[in-house]
Amino acid sequence: MEREPSGRTEISTRSRRAAMRKQSARTAALILCILSYLLVGAAVFDALESEAERSRQRLLARKRGEFRRKYRFSADDYRELERLALQAEPHRAGRQWRFAGSFYFAITVITTIGYGHAAPGTDSGKVFCMFYALLGIPLTLVTFQSLGERLNALVRCLLLAAKRCLGLRRPHVTAENMVVAGLLLCAATLALGAAAFAHFEGWTFFHAYYYCFITLTTIGFGDFVALQRDEALQRKPPYVAFSFLYILLGLTVIGAFLNLVVLRFLASADAPERAAHRHASVFRRRARARRIRAGASSCIPYPVVHQLETWACDNPAFSPPLSPEAVHHCHSNPDRPRARRKSI
Amino acid sequence: MEREPSGRTEISTRSRRAAMRKQSARTAALILCILSYLLVGAAVFDALESEAERSRQRLLARKRGEFRRKYRFSADDYRELERLALQAEPHRAGRQWRFAGSFYFAITVITTIGYGHAAPGTDSGKVFCMFYALLGIPLTLVTFQSLGERLNALVRCLLLAAKRCLGLRRPHVTAENMVVAGLLLCAATLALGAAAFAHFEGWTFFHAYYYCFITLTTIGFGDFVALQRDEALQRKPPYVAFSFLYILLGLTVIGAFLNLVVLRFLASADAPERAAHRHASVFRRRARARRIRAGASSCIPYPVVHQLETWACDNPAFSPPLSPEAVHHCHSNPDRPRARRKSI
Repeated sequence: MEREPSGRTEISTRSRRAAMRKQSARTAALILCILSYLLVGAAVFDALESEAERSRQRLLARKRGEFRRKYRFSADDYRELERLALQAEPHRAGRQWRFAGSFYFAITVITTIGYGHAAPGTDSGKVFCMFYALLGIPLTLVTFQSLGERLNALVRCLLLAAKRCLGLRRPHVTAENMVVAGLLLCAATLALGAAAFAHFEGWTFFHAYYYCFITLTTIGFGDFVALQRDEALQRKPPYVAFSFLYILLGLTVIGAFLNLVVLRFLASADAPERAAHRHASVFRRRARARRIRAGASSCIPYPVVHQLETWACDNPAFSPPLSPEAVHHCHSNPDRPRARRKSI
Repeated sequence: MEREPSGRTEISTRSRRAAMRKQSARTAALILCILSYLLVGAAVFDALESEAERSRQRLLARKRGEFRRKYRFSADDYRELERLALQAEPHRAGRQWRFAGSFYFAITVITTIGYGHAAPGTDSGKVFCMFYALLGIPLTLVTFQSLGERLNALVRCLLLAAKRCLGLRRPHVTAENMVVAGLLLCAATLALGAAAFAHFEGWTFFHAYYYCFITLTTIGFGDFVALQRDEALQRKPPYVAFSFLYILLGLTVIGAFLNLVVLRFLASADAPERAAHRHASVFRRRARARRIRAGASSCIPYPVVHQLETWACDNPAFSPPLSPEAVHHCHSNPDRPRARRKSI
């Protein structure tokens, strides 16, 4: 019976290998999933955009031909004109690197939005940009997750208060309530931003909504960029402040929703070591429980058993299955703060 | 002695409030930190880029003036020429919306790189893009975290094997080993990519490195974009495949490093509920332990005490401080699989 040490090691190793195979299978499945998703996306974008691209190309070639015939450009001159036009584009929107513009750029770096409406022209600017991002991006991730957690806590309080006001007998905020509230908050944030930018930028509501979506998901194509009209960066400080605030608050709302849904999923995914460790612990505890019951002693004081079961209740995510008596004990104690999955 | 239920609730509420105040203070500190970081960044970018911007603007204005004098453009015609040049830019790089280009675009969407070298021109393309991102971004997050965890597991195995080969007596891979290995892997990924893109795109090594950095941090300005030269998307399938693989593998390496460093920090940050819950549990357990010692019974069989202490050893992140005897028990048992912080 006491060949335990090597037996325990063997069980641990087997459990760990099984958990690692499971994790590798999960990873392989996700890779296949992503590849399929990319293939489907490519096919659909091809179908939606390819024909329009061809038409635009033909139209542009025709217009270019008309201009070249009208002004009789040489090929080199025309190429030079195009290059000039491209380089002049950011300047047309006003000064991009004064303090307001640099602040805007710094936001697009650390949030990884990266519109590209302005990008460092000097090599020293590029070097500083890289170091700035290296420290700024993790700092931003942590800040938005922290802000998002606070926002979730606030929403939870408000929902609880609302349920109490509605006179519900045992008001309790479920995970589903939180997800629905999060979705509504995201939709409202996008809609409000769309209305504001449609007004200030002269875009259609749809284009403004698309801009807000692409910004708050940090994709940041740069096909639509706020603060580029009428030298707004220098001339409209309130609108500049609103745009910055909107981006930062909007990212908080999205971060809160991600915190609620995705990060929890990431953080609770079984890692092989933890799963194997848990399995090995389960085997050891069951073996000892069998020995106790068969047992050396019958005098197990209730407080000790109670302590074991309380510990199991307090750590539901990391404990082996409870005995039916322990489960009953957990549920029959209304004063116990309900063990909740961690939020960040 | 048995006024416990209201006493327990009071302790839980006080603990929860204290934890929430602590979390709010932490969030406020992070906000101040970020704002300061943005202000400092804005000042530095202003200093580095503003003067160069003014020089470029003057140079462009002079060249524009020369062209306008040479060809005698009207103001409208010149504006129209500039618009044509901007619209023609993506086409100059070749077809952007054939299958290869669409696949490239789909990658930039779901990874949130979002260069913007191509962006949906049609409204239906924009709508599909938003839905595509809505599902694709979380899927990508989960996939890269999973891949990153597998990569970390592989690196851990290799380091362990290397330490054994070096004949170390008790080979063990520490967190510091993993962080250093992660940093080296990131640096190597960037350097290799820089060498490759410098060769294929004709960029300097520095610009290629900058491109890889901006891509793998998913900032994606779009000032440097691979596969835009010599119609590479249609004419160089091996280079296209290499570019796609580089982006996906590079993001895996970065994801693994983030998984190792940042996500663990995010996931282990005390949430108020968990902290309060833990404090309340600590109080309850200590109270019961005092009752046991003062005690109803002196016959606590060793197996039961052992079970308690084993449970504490197995859950070091979530257990109250152990008694000195229990700590000794944990450390004196060499066969125990060492409880490790979870990796994802």
